[in-house]
Amino acid sequence: MARISVSSPADFHVHLRQGKMAALVAPHVRQGGFALAYVMPNLKPPITTTAQALAYKQDLEAIDPTVEYLMTLYLSPDLTPDEIVKAKAAGIVGVKSYPRGVTTNSDGGIESYEMYYPVFEAMQRVDMVLNLHGEVPSDPTTNTHILNAEPQFLPHLHSLHKAFPRLRIVLEHATTRAAVDAVKACGPTVACTITAHHLALTVDDWAGQSFNFCKPVAKFPDDREALREVIREAHPRFFLGSDSAPHPVHSKSTSTPTQGCAAGIYTSPILLPLVAHLLESFGALDKLDGFASAFGRRFYHRDLNAEQKENKVVLQKIGNHVVAGKIRRRR
Amino acid sequence: MARISVSSPADFHVHLRQGKMAALVAPHVRQGGFALAYVMPNLKPPITTTAQALAYKQDLEAIDPTVEYLMTLYLSPDLTPDEIVKAKAAGIVGVKSYPRGVTTNSDGGIESYEMYYPVFEAMQRVDMVLNLHGEVPSDPTTNTHILNAEPQFLPHLHSLHKAFPRLRIVLEHATTRAAVDAVKACGPTVACTITAHHLALTVDDWAGQSFNFCKPVAKFPDDREALREVIREAHPRFFLGSDSAPHPVHSKSTSTPTQGCAAGIYTSPILLPLVAHLLESFGALDKLDGFASAFGRRFYHRDLNAEQKENKVVLQKIGNHVVAGKIRRRR
Repeated sequence: MARISVSSPADFHVHLRQGKMAALVAPHVRQGGFALAYVMPNLKPPITTTAQALAYKQDLEAIDPTVEYLMTLYLSPDLTPDEIVKAKAAGIVGVKSYPRGVTTNSDGGIESYEMYYPVFEAMQRVDMVLNLHGEVPSDPTTNTHILNAEPQFLPHLHSLHKAFPRLRIVLEHATTRAAVDAVKACGPTVACTITAHHLALTVDDWAGQSFNFCKPVAKFPDDREALREVIREAHPRFFLGSDSAPHPVHSKSTSTPTQGCAAGIYTSPILLPLVAHLLESFGALDKLDGFASAFGRRFYHRDLNAEQKENKVVLQKIGNHVVAGKIRRRR
Repeated sequence: MARISVSSPADFHVHLRQGKMAALVAPHVRQGGFALAYVMPNLKPPITTTAQALAYKQDLEAIDPTVEYLMTLYLSPDLTPDEIVKAKAAGIVGVKSYPRGVTTNSDGGIESYEMYYPVFEAMQRVDMVLNLHGEVPSDPTTNTHILNAEPQFLPHLHSLHKAFPRLRIVLEHATTRAAVDAVKACGPTVACTITAHHLALTVDDWAGQSFNFCKPVAKFPDDREALREVIREAHPRFFLGSDSAPHPVHSKSTSTPTQGCAAGIYTSPILLPLVAHLLESFGALDKLDGFASAFGRRFYHRDLNAEQKENKVVLQKIGNHVVAGKIRRRR
């Protein structure tokens, strides 16, 4: 019987929300096979201080103490170099940048990077990671739209990398061949997360199908192929960040003429078997441990010791298993 | 008070369905300001014979006898040159070609055109119009997807035009700059319809918003600009075909994880004021009569005589009018 194991799987991009939603979804990290969650800060209000991040971490640990939560701050004008030093000392790992208005709870996102250079300078000095949602906002006057929003962001990535060559940067949830090429062209301080769903979907899949709609949107078949290729070649700077993002079912399933559906795809409860299934589909199952644990851990300085490496999750193919769910149909 | 008039408006692409849906929507042609409807044949079963088309025309005239219905046949292997001669004699105007599987009720659509050359030869001889849904089916192995399906179809348009230079061809519901350029590059026998919704929407508008989802999907801002430009320049081979396509509200508003939403945007009940509003928004209101009546009528040999030209629909701007509707919210 086909079996494969992964040492202490790590999801380097996940949305665990707050309140009742957090209580519901945080246990799904472990259920999906993962021992580490890199937690996004786009709550309401966003996590912008060390104190908030530590309180949020406590909340998550109260829900499921068996997962290691790596915490992040939300990049905003309120964030100071002093706060960066404080955050680093408190064990906070990264700072997430959202362009304004491009995804869930990003209304406070950034519009240009220069004003944050003192913060980035501090981050480089204390060795915190900058996590980039790599899309520019749509603008019809420049023919900027959700399909080219990521390629048009890439010059910003290069500028930041050039200005802060020792700053560790992660381009999050890459969806295009252009992004893969851009990250490859950068030095060892720049890495890239890839979601499970972007290994599966293309634009055809979310057209008229809101459950497949997320930001960044899934792109073209050739873009998906680029994501698969970089995993097949076991490039050590490309690793899993699920961007798993829960939304209430009604907000995914129901549109009105004036209100569309929420952006986000939720994969946490089945994440490791899903990733294994996908990697197998394009001939990369033997790269699972690197993609879903080792590469991300190395970039984030979360390497496992020999003992920890023995803490494996074993996947076994049992065939025709239907994932349990509680979706209430409203038709 | 701002007023504008159009002589006997003509919609050269509309879906009037059958049965109860037809009884509901056919009166909306007149309600939307139109005196002529070029009727699509994608019923269940599709309209493939002269007898079916004439029976369908009778049904529509029984619902609203004040509209002129121009009838079409659905291109399929059952259609013979003899049937073309018969159809022409019975007053049927065109033949609609659907690529297989790309839109509503297109499962019987075509896969390659060569097998239809005897039919096209007969159509050219008797002067029937070929109406093309100009998209190729998606194919991940060739990076063909819903965003480039129309540009990739254009070589077929050129081949058909070259093989049958006297055959009148209409590229339906163009959505891309490439399509506009391709039709312009053809001779006077090739024309192009443009919908109202493609003058308004881009890909950003239908992402996660199923009410804005149709096939062909709305493309990029620069593509929309090309559609607007060709109307501003009053090109006589570009005219209105609304592709107005009704679907039950629940099939537009509700998705499940395994079932997306229906493709189609319904504009008939407000079509002429909507088109006027859109043309005004990009500086083409003075082109309304050509776009929504004269150009299409000329191409289809449906020119108005002096007396008919006096049969005008007058639009008057009254401001802040809310379109009446009966959408039942299901949230």
